[in-house]
Amino acid sequence: MLGLMMDQPLLISDLIRHADRHHGDTEIVSKTVEDGSVHRYTYREAHGRARRLAKALGGLGVQTGDRVATLAWNGYRHFEIYYAVAGSGGVIHTINPRLFPEQIAYIANHAEDRVLCFDINLAPLVEKLAPMLKTVKAYVAMCARAAMPKASIPGLHCYEELLEAQDGRYDWPSFDERTAACLCYTSGTTGNPKGALYSHRSTMLHAYAAALPDALNLSARDVILPVVPMFHVNAWGLPYSCAAMGAKVVFPGQHLDGKSLHTLFEQEGVTMSAGVPTVWLGLLATMKEQKLKFSTLRAVVIGGSAAPPAMIRTFQEEYGVQVLHAWGMTEMSPLGTVCTFKAKHAKWGKEDRYALQNKIGRVLFGVDTRIVDENGKELPRDGKAFGDLQVRGPWIVSGYFKGEGGDPLKKDAAGEAWFPTGDVVTIDPDGYIQITDRSKDVIKSGGEWISSIDLENIAVAHPAVQEAAVIGVRHPKWDERPIVVVVRKAGQELSREDLLKFYEGKIAKWWMPEDVVFVNELPHTATGKLSKLTLRQQMKDYQLPG
Amino acid sequence: MLGLMMDQPLLISDLIRHADRHHGDTEIVSKTVEDGSVHRYTYREAHGRARRLAKALGGLGVQTGDRVATLAWNGYRHFEIYYAVAGSGGVIHTINPRLFPEQIAYIANHAEDRVLCFDINLAPLVEKLAPMLKTVKAYVAMCARAAMPKASIPGLHCYEELLEAQDGRYDWPSFDERTAACLCYTSGTTGNPKGALYSHRSTMLHAYAAALPDALNLSARDVILPVVPMFHVNAWGLPYSCAAMGAKVVFPGQHLDGKSLHTLFEQEGVTMSAGVPTVWLGLLATMKEQKLKFSTLRAVVIGGSAAPPAMIRTFQEEYGVQVLHAWGMTEMSPLGTVCTFKAKHAKWGKEDRYALQNKIGRVLFGVDTRIVDENGKELPRDGKAFGDLQVRGPWIVSGYFKGEGGDPLKKDAAGEAWFPTGDVVTIDPDGYIQITDRSKDVIKSGGEWISSIDLENIAVAHPAVQEAAVIGVRHPKWDERPIVVVVRKAGQELSREDLLKFYEGKIAKWWMPEDVVFVNELPHTATGKLSKLTLRQQMKDYQLPG
Repeated sequence: MLGLMMDQPLLISDLIRHADRHHGDTEIVSKTVEDGSVHRYTYREAHGRARRLAKALGGLGVQTGDRVATLAWNGYRHFEIYYAVAGSGGVIHTINPRLFPEQIAYIANHAEDRVLCFDINLAPLVEKLAPMLKTVKAYVAMCARAAMPKASIPGLHCYEELLEAQDGRYDWPSFDERTAACLCYTSGTTGNPKGALYSHRSTMLHAYAAALPDALNLSARDVILPVVPMFHVNAWGLPYSCAAMGAKVVFPGQHLDGKSLHTLFEQEGVTMSAGVPTVWLGLLATMKEQKLKFSTLRAVVIGGSAAPPAMIRTFQEEYGVQVLHAWGMTEMSPLGTVCTFKAKHAKWGKEDRYALQNKIGRVLFGVDTRIVDENGKELPRDGKAFGDLQVRGPWIVSGYFKGEGGDPLKKDAAGEAWFPTGDVVTIDPDGYIQITDRSKDVIKSGGEWISSIDLENIAVAHPAVQEAAVIGVRHPKWDERPIVVVVRKAGQELSREDLLKFYEGKIAKWWMPEDVVFVNELPHTATGKLSKLTLRQQMKDYQLPG
Repeated sequence: MLGLMMDQPLLISDLIRHADRHHGDTEIVSKTVEDGSVHRYTYREAHGRARRLAKALGGLGVQTGDRVATLAWNGYRHFEIYYAVAGSGGVIHTINPRLFPEQIAYIANHAEDRVLCFDINLAPLVEKLAPMLKTVKAYVAMCARAAMPKASIPGLHCYEELLEAQDGRYDWPSFDERTAACLCYTSGTTGNPKGALYSHRSTMLHAYAAALPDALNLSARDVILPVVPMFHVNAWGLPYSCAAMGAKVVFPGQHLDGKSLHTLFEQEGVTMSAGVPTVWLGLLATMKEQKLKFSTLRAVVIGGSAAPPAMIRTFQEEYGVQVLHAWGMTEMSPLGTVCTFKAKHAKWGKEDRYALQNKIGRVLFGVDTRIVDENGKELPRDGKAFGDLQVRGPWIVSGYFKGEGGDPLKKDAAGEAWFPTGDVVTIDPDGYIQITDRSKDVIKSGGEWISSIDLENIAVAHPAVQEAAVIGVRHPKWDERPIVVVVRKAGQELSREDLLKFYEGKIAKWWMPEDVVFVNELPHTATGKLSKLTLRQQMKDYQLPG
């Protein structure tokens, strides 16, 4: 027997319609790409323009299910494209303009994008891309006629002219809420990029969950500045959650240096912002250097990679800004956890509270987690056992676009499907998760796991160590044993025995590295991350001592 | 093209499973009906017992879709029944024990309840009801063996014995999220009671929306005491939202007097509570009389009927407790609006902010509203035009159980279906709604509407008026014209002319009542509300002067 409730699908168009009807006068402010000036309008105007754009895209031949790509920074036109494309039944495919042109071409061809919208300062990139793109029929420069780039791009249209040619008469269509809405590719370290294809349903449920008090805590009293790019997992869903909550949005455009951000924060009364640690490092350096303060900022979300403990402390103690340490994945829309306190923690001491904030937090309602050992057996949630983190929930992928990479899911004994995150973690009895390692980096010794990250953190705490990487090497008895590969600080002395001595008392005996190998430098990826894959290849002929 | 996201239905069992897995140690505290003692356990234990109960109900013959009724106060066993019944695919039908036995029998027979669970102090009522109930096969007394009532009730079972007979091995089934989960009857002033049949989907979406910062703002840092009964529209959804957020819950049992509530608030560290104005009147009287303070309470939700302006002020100014003025209906699961501020209101003066708080607020994301005139034409959202309030959204009924009362929905020009609330309201450009009248009470004069409530409020502001009711009477030219029916205060003089003079300058000229009729008393309903239906019948032979 079914309930007798209105059968209303969860559609992205309802977000912007809601914002128009109930928060029509609330502002969307953008630092423009054209000249750095500030553009200012309301949800009501954004809705009107999004409807005109939806009509214009129809005129360019975009049909239900067609992909419309963007190469764009955070701004109001990008926001309009989000709603126009998904709202009309298309799929918005946001592409990171910082990828190599060959990667972009691969992704756009794999996605079979029909239209590509781009910010005008990316025109040279698009000019280079155009000959490689096999399916794009129209290019849209996101500007007015006067600013149109003088680039040799076939089928080039002017965004504002497209809108001007349309009247505002457009009703958002209704359809199955499981319809695809957004496409984001992950750039895995191995294999081809894989596309996560979000639905209207998953996006809407994520929008609800992300706004909850124990997640990002968003309301109509907030002014939100998403530093995280709109090409990076939908700016962590903020363009959706903000519309749902009627929060004022401030789009920072292209310049994310500390001074530009601080000025915008103060001018627009920003209460909450979200970005990766690198951005906050820059901001905090400027703040300190120029002795600046925040007048309205109450919280920052730090995600993308682990929030450094000192950064959490600086925000909270020096600036009175609450840090929300968050974790997610492209495959998770992206939010999985946010680190907020429970009632019991009010009684905890300051240092214990900071220790908790270094964890990635606990799940948003809707996401479930479990940790499993190598055989898929669930491990206890005791804060000690660590294993592969698996997740499930309505905004987590069931597979990748066009079946790329095969079926990623693992079934449990009850037949429920889980997505393996590739992280090795502990979960404490209160549900707080600590990342211990990446699955591919964890060292399996005698049937037990050793965290390479823990061992690296100890090594770099030694005053003579500049950088360290811990990897597992084959061992006849224990399968794998850890070794530390170390770059000494210039002019410092450090022996194998010195460093091993330094580990004593800090770890269980069986975690003790078998050897220390000194090198002049460690391999890194293009984005500056330590590349253990390359390191393992470099060390493939290494023999354990004895 | 569908998205590639996990196809996971929104099921009520996931709420208690989530609370167990991620907030397992968080407490549920109950003042028991048996002896007023305090019972204390955790979400983990509640989940274990709910699963055993689900198995036990299966043993009593409850099958998918079967209705299980409750006659019970707010307590942990009632909470377990919520989850056991809905989680296992049944429908929980909560009945108000304060209705007349004949009304209860009508409702239970209409619902075709299979099992009836009751708190033991309601055993005399159940004994009286049993012969009238045609479909109930089993009665469950919510107590341990020792407390079993000595009542003549056929097929009587002991709750704790049922649980003890089961092991904990039970996996919640998975099914279509649109499956019926809960049934609540509305007691309309005319016609038979009508059942609102909620689904798992509607309940889960409501649980998300109700917890948002602009709704009830619930988190794992909260301790929530629902004064609003669990037999009254699922205690406004709190038993669901609290489990979703991992908030500690305090169930007050049967005694809702000021002293009992204040003691529980202080003992358990309650941060938020929710109830009707009558309850808060009692609490505030006790607070004042005994010079008490709140140590932990941060907010109260006031709903069910309009929050009196003085009550809002007292809570906020004397006790530092934020008032959340809320509005909803059984047909809306029930939350429709909550009165929270927007960013712009931070700059408003105190009196303007209070004036705003007297409104019922703005919609939760998921609910849409519109106001229409008599012909169904949408009226502007300008804070001035008033018309019939219609609502739509995924937790609003599309009809009543077994088709009672026919199709309640109205279609708009675009073919979208709206539920008419029966309230006459204004909506301002920021979305804040003010209730002006009930549809059936509004006076239609010369094609325009006059608010009977506004005219009554002015009359009762006169020092010589004890009570007043305004109704429309037939008028040959204007269709209807308002008259005031007044009860004078004992020993006070008041003439027709005095009162009409009192209206001058306070209303538009065409709103001026045509006449004043003095009576010794006004008719009231069983629950103490003014009965305009009866008054209109009493006045049916009344002739306008002139």
